[in-house]
Order: sequence, then structure tokens, then C-alpha cells
Amino acid sequence: MMINFRNDYNDIAHEAILDLLLEVKDQSNIGYGEDVITDKAKQLLQTHFDHKIYTSFMVGGTITNKTVISHLLKPYEAVISASTGHIDVHETGAIEQTGHKIITIDSVDGKINASDVKRTLEQFQDFHRVIPKMIYLSNATETGLIYNKSELIELYEVAKQNDLILFIDGARLGVALTSKESDLTLNEISLYSDIFYIGGTKNGAMLGEAIITKHEAMHNNLTYSIKQNGGLLAKGFILGIQFQALFTNNLFFEIASKANQNANLLVEGLKQLRIDFKPTPTNQQFLRLKKSIVDSLKKNYQFEIWADHDAEQTIRLVTTYRRNEVEIQSFLRDLSKLI
Amino acid sequence: MMINFRNDYNDIAHEAILDLLLEVKDQSNIGYGEDVITDKAKQLLQTHFDHKIYTSFMVGGTITNKTVISHLLKPYEAVISASTGHIDVHETGAIEQTGHKIITIDSVDGKINASDVKRTLEQFQDFHRVIPKMIYLSNATETGLIYNKSELIELYEVAKQNDLILFIDGARLGVALTSKESDLTLNEISLYSDIFYIGGTKNGAMLGEAIITKHEAMHNNLTYSIKQNGGLLAKGFILGIQFQALFTNNLFFEIASKANQNANLLVEGLKQLRIDFKPTPTNQQFLRLKKSIVDSLKKNYQFEIWADHDAEQTIRLVTTYRRNEVEIQSFLRDLSKLI
Amino acid sequence: MMINFRNDYNDIAHEAILDLLLEVKDQSNIGYGEDVITDKAKQLLQTHFDHKIYTSFMVGGTITNKTVISHLLKPYEAVISASTGHIDVHETGAIEQTGHKIITIDSVDGKINASDVKRTLEQFQDFHRVIPKMIYLSNATETGLIYNKSELIELYEVAKQNDLILFIDGARLGVALTSKESDLTLNEISLYSDIFYIGGTKNGAMLGEAIITKHEAMHNNLTYSIKQNGGLLAKGFILGIQFQALFTNNLFFEIASKANQNANLLVEGLKQLRIDFKPTPTNQQFLRLKKSIVDSLKKNYQFEIWADHDAEQTIRLVTTYRRNEVEIQSFLRDLSKLI
Amino acid sequence: MMINFRNDYNDIAHEAILDLLLEVKDQSNIGYGEDVITDKAKQLLQTHFDHKIYTSFMVGGTITNKTVISHLLKPYEAVISASTGHIDVHETGAIEQTGHKIITIDSVDGKINASDVKRTLEQFQDFHRVIPKMIYLSNATETGLIYNKSELIELYEVAKQNDLILFIDGARLGVALTSKESDLTLNEISLYSDIFYIGGTKNGAMLGEAIITKHEAMHNNLTYSIKQNGGLLAKGFILGIQFQALFTNNLFFEIASKANQNANLLVEGLKQLRIDFKPTPTNQQFLRLKKSIVDSLKKNYQFEIWADHDAEQTIRLVTTYRRNEVEIQSFLRDLSKLI
Repeated sequence: MMINFRNDYNDIAHEAILDLLLEVKDQSNIGYGEDVITDKAKQLLQTHFDHKIYTSFMVGGTITNKTVISHLLKPYEAVISASTGHIDVHETGAIEQTGHKIITIDSVDGKINASDVKRTLEQFQDFHRVIPKMIYLSNATETGLIYNKSELIELYEVAKQNDLILFIDGARLGVALTSKESDLTLNEISLYSDIFYIGGTKNGAMLGEAIITKHEAMHNNLTYSIKQNGGLLAKGFILGIQFQALFTNNLFFEIASKANQNANLLVEGLKQLRIDFKPTPTNQQFLRLKKSIVDSLKKNYQFEIWADHDAEQTIRLVTTYRRNEVEIQSFLRDLSKLI
Repeated sequence: MMINFRNDYNDIAHEAILDLLLEVKDQSNIGYGEDVITDKAKQLLQTHFDHKIYTSFMVGGTITNKTVISHLLKPYEAVISASTGHIDVHETGAIEQTGHKIITIDSVDGKINASDVKRTLEQFQDFHRVIPKMIYLSNATETGLIYNKSELIELYEVAKQNDLILFIDGARLGVALTSKESDLTLNEISLYSDIFYIGGTKNGAMLGEAIITKHEAMHNNLTYSIKQNGGLLAKGFILGIQFQALFTNNLFFEIASKANQNANLLVEGLKQLRIDFKPTPTNQQFLRLKKSIVDSLKKNYQFEIWADHDAEQTIRLVTTYRRNEVEIQSFLRDLSKLI
Repeated sequence: MMINFRNDYNDIAHEAILDLLLEVKDQSNIGYGEDVITDKAKQLLQTHFDHKIYTSFMVGGTITNKTVISHLLKPYEAVISASTGHIDVHETGAIEQTGHKIITIDSVDGKINASDVKRTLEQFQDFHRVIPKMIYLSNATETGLIYNKSELIELYEVAKQNDLILFIDGARLGVALTSKESDLTLNEISLYSDIFYIGGTKNGAMLGEAIITKHEAMHNNLTYSIKQNGGLLAKGFILGIQFQALFTNNLFFEIASKANQNANLLVEGLKQLRIDFKPTPTNQQFLRLKKSIVDSLKKNYQFEIWADHDAEQTIRLVTTYRRNEVEIQSFLRDLSKLI
Repeated sequence: MMINFRNDYNDIAHEAILDLLLEVKDQSNIGYGEDVITDKAKQLLQTHFDHKIYTSFMVGGTITNKTVISHLLKPYEAVISASTGHIDVHETGAIEQTGHKIITIDSVDGKINASDVKRTLEQFQDFHRVIPKMIYLSNATETGLIYNKSELIELYEVAKQNDLILFIDGARLGVALTSKESDLTLNEISLYSDIFYIGGTKNGAMLGEAIITKHEAMHNNLTYSIKQNGGLLAKGFILGIQFQALFTNNLFFEIASKANQNANLLVEGLKQLRIDFKPTPTNQQFLRLKKSIVDSLKKNYQFEIWADHDAEQTIRLVTTYRRNEVEIQSFLRDLSKLI
């Protein structure tokens, strides 16, 4: 049977979510997220913060990004993103569809820093150009890197000094926060940003992202924007169930930790094999291998070809909470025979 | 315990859907709707048609409406709808957000007919006005009425004569087709329209609508529009599961029939009580009652107040497959004591 | 030679504008409206107000409407208009193109009143509907009627009570203010609205509308919106020239008065001919005549057919400052021979 | 008196345009571009092409760009531009406001070539990314460079091979075609592109750009898009006048030639002064000079500071048909004293 390293959204959901679904299956519920399950999920989330937060749920990352950005920006205001940012590269123009320009900062690893932002702002000075009004960043980034506390604080400071909104795409926030290299807590993500979301889809949920802001003004009328963008589920409680389960007994962090632990096993094994690669601190690892090796690995393992380079290919290996040590060792063993 | 007549989207999902979820819970799947479960669901749907259909899945009605409409219209083209149409009244400007005007035809019962459309077209004759390019109708309508075959054929003919696209919102297509007053089949819905969707959310699914068109050209690149509108789930198979279950052993029609049967029981009982009301052929019934009676009913039954009229109120009673004869009789008995 | 009653935008421009063009023809000027001519025009406009105003210039009505509306509304906010409003009927979906819904109030004469607005607001109460945030009205209306001071004050009060923006389309503000039935001044138009524009195109200019607001916050960044909407002329001074000329020696009001005087002559003459019609207080008059009479009149006069009614037609006669008593009398004489 | 090298849109208009304005000043005209003057302008333009062309007029470059692009692209289709392209850098997000992404190709001189385009296309292969559907280029570019015939043909071929639309922004087409380095005719611009415009604003007109396409299908309903974008002037004949004058006796080319001749004088003079700079073949020249020299020149000459480099500045000198040899020599003489 194939072992799946393809991505972190290939399973139905964590058992605990299915269990909760079954537990409430005969309940009747109020629609549009005004039900008690959704309320419970919000309360569970609130316990992770030392300040009042406002929470809304949406089904996926792209719709969350376009809703948050268009909710907060005026027509002539733009969002700054790394050139590798999901909103610029992998959302089929979803942000532009709402009328907003994305200003990209060239970035190899998907991270941007405070001085990048300052340099960018200098170029936008008159009414022939849009007004940069938001910084968008992903934690973890598209290629598995993370922001540490000082980097985030610096970005937040430059945002505040320049009247910018700092928005964090947390589609993979779980693996970012539980990475052994992370020095940030969920509470601090809120302290050092204006609005962010916690990704459920890539962390064991069937679907769902939780938008969180500490600013009541940003939350106001957000439901109108969610509805207008087509993101208000009639059965909103389906989303509530995901997050009630994920934030009961810290399941969210447990799922993410397991994914990272599997990644660590993989990284350590690869190092022992003296494979030349740049490990990431989260659940995505990128290896450049001979095409013939890649072809052999394909027989037993599923993964994405990230890039082609003549006789070689870069492959992406994503570990999730579903993988285990036996599977990782199997991969390493098979690889060791090929190199 | 309260008996729920509030709406048709208050339960988690039909047992069969939960069963299928559990059955596949350890499978690993390809993302973005390219998985085998979704494929299977599409095949099951195809069996209901005597011609080739193209199917896509989305999470809910509003996002389906905005995606289909913006996918098919040029910027200066508009959609014709009944003034009571969901797209005009209950989607927070979602269609306008995509840049398109809705041309409304005054309608009390939510239906429009061929001559309404012709009269409307006459008013749009030059470049100071938008070009009407699509007819949008709901079957069943917002207030539970249905189109019969000759009405639909007439609308389709006027559409074809005027180069219009006929788009059917089938959020409640199940109860429309299984109504005892209906003379239409699912196959005929496709024959006499250009594109339509089958609502899962209000017919036993956790979420999900199936967009169907017989025109390859309309299907082309629809996935791009779905993604751009934020409607492409990473775990697309969650939607596939809904429709695989609904279209196995005709569950979809069974769920809808049960809702209609419960409505029939209610209607017959109300007639025997000599309540003055206008029954509908589907699962929504509207009663105008004294406010004091409404208040008494509220103690044991959940329903929506549809309209206020001084000393009276119109209430909406929605029956679903979850209701049963005992509950209906209980309501009728309680009502009989109050009038 | 044909006498033109077709519309108020058929001549090149008033002589004074051409004179000013020639006077400055060898000047070199700063671009994008930051020149001294534009400044001078703004100063001349300011003299008509007892409070500070902020002025911007655009080329025409549709682009002004779409720019002002999209500049001031959030995505889920909508504008209330008479069902006959220019933005709803004659702008090819320009407002919807910016993402905003127009909420129409049925109106025969193109006017709306405070109680219409209040009744409308009651219907928009939750997140399934847009939030009405602006009242749009035209003065004069599409069919030549005007608002008097008490009507405007009432509308402004309902706007303020409900946190709405009152926006006046003044494409024909000149004839409205100089109508003998008007009790409003230009200053009062600003006092009892939030933002409005003064139409140049239909009042002797080659092109151009002046957007005026007393609110600095509404003016802030308006140039960004103007540019984004494609309305910022490189040679902005061309617009400055129009308004410098129009507001030197009150030419703007003189042009409008002359148009109204010609309309009065026409109305008085028609009354003497015992023609049955409903006169308007401005420069547009509507007559319902036998088709054979209309056909005869067409030989010597240009006008628009406003509506067809079997054997009769309603024609629109627009008088401008270019018409004179001889021409009006000629029309009346010809008509008198036909009836 | 200051000599103006600031830009090519600082004068009111060429004498011939003012003459024509005066000539027709007492005519009455049909609105919205359906008048005889506009017709005459279109006929004059047609004489420059060996194939049928379709022409529309708009007021300026930004609104033309956004109208053409949104008229021709589907929502999920994007336009490819040089990173220095006017649509990306200087239009305040006007293209994104219509919902479309701009894909930029890094470019120093503002030019893109066929292999740039091919390489870009390879990166857009699935529904997570937009579909590149149009190539946008400017001739002359933002920095005064031009495309030669073989470059344009190569781009057009890559466009046709990949089902892309080739759209040329001709805001400065006059100086491009009349450059002594150009081997292209106006007819060939149409042959080797799908749609383009001829800039009037920067070539002696008061305002106005002429959109030209050889494809009837692209022209169809373009007036609807123009109106929806707010670009349909009530007094459309004002635009007709500009182009009737410009294309009578080849005035358009004469104005552009004069601007280029003045540029040549400047370039030759600068070479004799042994100034180190990279001449362009059109009416914009860029010089990097010591800040103290720039400051001295500012006393008698107007120009833009294009870039700051510590102790030096790059200035842009734009020559127009209004400049003459005496003024150019004066500048060269003053500069020679400073270096």
C-alpha cells in the first residue's frame, strides 16, 4: 500500500471530529453559525488568549483570504505579500477579483521582513499608485518556514508605525506553533498581529478555518462580508464541530506536533543518509534527487514533484499526524538503497 | 422536547452520509475534487440523465450562484430574476460583488414566466442599459412553489429565442421534483435549462450543491471560477461523499419525498381544521394566525415568523425527512385546541 | 434648418468657455488637476458657500456616480435610489461593476421622500441583506422635477438619523436651482447633503462635473478613487477651464436660467393652446400627441420619442440656453396648426 | 520665462484643434459619439489601414486600458505586462479594480519579448493560477523605447500560437512611429496586434485616445463596456473633434515628428557636450547629473526628477512639438556652463 507524503489535506478528518459528529448527529441546530456548538468552539478558542478575541469560521483558505482582505481595505488600498505568497501564486486571482492589488516583495523562502516592508512603502507615494494598507504573511510559509517572535514583533511595529494591518494566513499555523524552533504562542500571534486565522483543513479537520481578531472594529459586519463572499454556511455548525473537537484537550496542537515529530524523524534520517538538503522546521521537506531515484520512490510513496531540473527533481514530502515511525523508516530505508 | 419546523438545514446530515464518512475515514485521497469518491458521485449523477452532463461541486447556494453567474456573463451582461429571488434578496449583494446587475421581475409567488421575460427584454435595447443574458429561477421557489413542465419549456424556448442562458437554482430541487404536483424529472431539468444545481444542504447533506450542465463550453474552466470565488475545497472529497451517499439507492429522492409526505400530512390536517391558508406543493407551508396562538405554539414548536400583520403573524412551517406523523399530529392537535 | 429640442448636451460649449480656452491656449500647465486654472475654478466655487468645501472635477456623470459611490461604501453597503434613477436605469450597470447593489424605491416622477427611505430601511435588518448606507437622488430628476427645501431637509434628517450618506446627482443642478419653483440655493444643497456634484456637461460646458463635499474625510483620497476609476485626466486643466468660465460672473446660473425661461415660454404657449400636459419646473417638457402630429413636427424640430402608446407618442422637449423666443414661438405655431 | 520639458501633456491643444472647435461651435450634434464629426474622424483613421478597422474613442489612457482589458478577458484570465508597465505601476490598481490580475515580467527598459512571454506561460498550468490571456505592451514604452517590426511580429506570433490577445498601449504611439529608428507603420501596428490605441492626449489633443481593432468580435458591445466603465461622453463629438483635426493632413504625425526632432537636437547636443547618457529614439531623454547642476537648471527649465541617487539625480526631459531649436540650444548652453 502506498504511503502518502503528498500533502496535509488527504484524509477525511481526525477520529475525534468524526466522534463529535456522531455524538451530535440527532441534534437540531440554529443556522448560519448562531448555534451552541459554534458558540462552544468560540469559547474554547478564547481560553488560549489573555485578551478578548472575536472569532468567525469559514470553509477554506482562499475564501478566508479574499473575505478578510476585501472586508478591511478600501478600493484603492493594497496588500503587501511575499512573491511566493499563496494569495499571489495559488488563488487564481481571488484577491484581484475583489478589486485589490497585491504588491509583492521578492522572497525565496516565503518570508518577508520589516525592512522589506519599509523599502516597499517608499515606492508608494502618490495617487498614481495604490496605498499599501495591509501586510499579509503566512506562518508557516508555503515552503515550511516559520517566523520567530522577534521577526513578528518587528513586522508588527512597522505595521503600526505606518498604519498598516498585519494579517497572518495560518493555514499551517499548527505546525508553525508546535515546531521545536518556534518561540511563539497562539496568544502572541494575536498580540503581534491584527487579524489571523487558524487553519483546520491542513490540521485534521474536514474543512474550516477560524478567523480571529482582537479588534472589535475589524470584526464588525464581518458576517456581511462572509455572506457576500459566499462563505456563510447554512449549516454553520459543521464548522463549529470541527473547532470544538480540535480545541478540546488541545487536539489541535497534538495533531500538529505529531506532524512535526514525523518530520523530525524524516530530517534526522535524511541527515544520517548524508542527503544534501535544507531541512525546514515544520512538516514539509524538500529534497532534490536524481530523476531515476524519484521514479523508484514513486512506486511506494506519494509525493509532489515541486520542481524539475533536467536530470534531477525536487520533491516535497509532507508529514501529517497520520504517518508513523515505521512509515518514515521505510521511506528512509528505500531511499538509502537508491543513493 | 421542541419539535423543529424551522427550516430544512438544522440537522447534521442523513445517517447514510455519516456511514459513508466512517467507511472511508482511513482512506487517503487526492485533493481539489480530483479523487475517486468525487468521481463516483459524478458517475451516479450521470445515471439520471439520457445525455452527457458535466458536474462540479460547491459548498453552498450563494457561492454557487455567484460563481455560475460570473463564470457565464460578460461584465455588461445581467441576470433576470423574480423580485423575490434568493440572489436579489438574501445574498448580501453577492452577485453585484461580481459586477453584475440583477434585473428583477415583480413576483408574489417567486415564479416568473415566459411573457414576463419577453416584456423585460423589450426594455433593454441600447448601450445605456445592461444586456439581459441569463434567466435565473428557483425550483422550488423561496415560498415552496414549483414549475411544471410546460412552464419550464416555455421559459427555455424564450431563452433560446433570445440567446439567454437558463439557470435553475435547485437548492430545493429535491422537494420540487418529488412533489406530487410535479411532472418533471431530473433529466428534464437538464433538458429544459442550460445549467442548474442540485441542493444537498437542504436535502440531508452536511453541505454541498452539485452544479450540472449539458454544455461542455459552460463547464470549461469552471474550476478556475470556482477557485477564484474561493469555493474549491482542498478536501473536495468531503463534497464527493455527500453526493455519493445521496445518489446511492436514490436516497436524495427518498429524503425529499419524506419531507413532502410530512408536508402533505400537515396540509390535510390543516384543511380538516378548516384553517384558511394556501397550501404549497412542497415542504414549506405558510399560516397566518393570531399572535396569541403563535405564542402558544412557540412553547413546543420551532418555526420562523415570516411576516407581522398587527394582531396576526404569518409563520413558516418547514417539514423535513426528520419529522414524522406523530409530530405532525401533535402540532395539529395543539393548534386545534387554540383556534 | 432644424430646431433642436433633443437634449441639453448637443452644443460644443458656451462661448465664454471657448474664449477662455483661447485665452490660455499658449500656457503650459501642471498635470492631473494640480494647475492654477483648476485652483482658480475651485476658489470661484468656494465663494458660493458659507462653509469650507472640497472640490474635485471629473469628465461626466456616470463616472462621477460610480467613483463617489464606490469611494464611500464598504463592499456590503448599498445605495438607495428611485427606481427611475440614472444609476439604476441608464448607466449599463456601472455601479454594480464596482460591487454595490442599488436598492430601488418605486417612483413615477423620479423623486423619493423621507418616508420611502424609512420604509426601505426596515426591510434590511440582517446579514443576509446588504446594509443601506447611502441615499442617491437627482436634482433635477430624470424627468425634470425638483426637490424643495423642506423635502431635502427631511431626507437629510432621515439620513443623519440612520447614519446614511446623502448624495445628490446634480447633472442638471443648474436648472433645478434656477427654476422659479425652487427655494434652494447652491449653499443649501451642500448644507443639506453630504456630497453632490454640479453638472457642467448639460449646462454649457464641453464636459465636466464638479464633485463637492463639506466633509474632509469624504474628500480624503478621493483622487485615488478618481484615478482608479480612470477619471483622472492628464490635462486636468481642461476641466478647470470649464468651471472657471462657468463660475465667472455667474455664467453657470445664467445658462440655466435661460434654459428655464425658454421652458416657461414653451409651457405658457402650450397652456394657451389648451394642450393637456403636466408641465415641469425645469427645462424638460413631456407632451403626449397623436403620432401623425409627432411625424409632422419631426420635419422641423429635433426631439426624443420618450414613449410609444399605440396611436400616440410622448415626446420630450428639452430647452437650452441656445434656444430663443422666436424658435419657441415657431414650434408653438406649427403645433397649433396640427391640433 | 520657464522652458517646459516636464511632460507631453502640459499644453491646452494644438491650434488646429482649437480652430476646428471654433469652426463647429454653433453646430448641434447627436450625443454619445453617434455624430457626424466622430464619423468623419473614424473615416480619416480608416484611410491609414489596408484592412477594415473598428474605432471607438475614450478620454484617457487609464480608462482605455481598464475598459479594453475587462471587455476582453474572462474573470479568471490575466494580462501579461512588463513590470514597468503603466497598468501595473501608475494606474492606482485600475486593472485589478475590474477583477483581473496583472502578471509582470521583469523589465528594465519597459520592453518584453517573445521568449519572456513563453517562459511566463510555462508557469501557469493549472486551476490554482490565473490563465494568461493577453499581452499588454506600450509603444513607445514608459521610458521612451520602441518596438521594431521583427520584435512585434515575434510577439504577435507567440500570441497567436498561445491564443493570447496582443494589446498595444499607444499613449505615445505618435513618437514611436515617427521615430527615425522605427520601421513600423500605423497599418502594421494593426496587422501585428489585436487591439491598440492611438494616444491623443500626449500628442497635441485636449484629451482622447482612439481604440482600434481589426476584429469585429472585439469591437462588438465595446460601447457597453465603455459606458459601464464611465467612459462614454454625452458630448462624444468633443473627442471626434480631436481626432478629426489630428488626422486631417497628417497633423498627428507632424506633431509627433516635431517632438522627435526636438529630441534629436537635444541628443546631438548632449553628445557634443560628451554627457554620458543613453539616448532614446523618442521624445523622452534621461540624464544623470550632479544635484547642484540639476538645481541650477531648475531655475529656467521645468522637468521631472526621475530618480534620486545620493549626490546625483536622474532627470527626465520631454520634448514636444511646442519646443523649438532656440529653446533646446538654450538648455544645452546653460548645461555646458554647469558641467
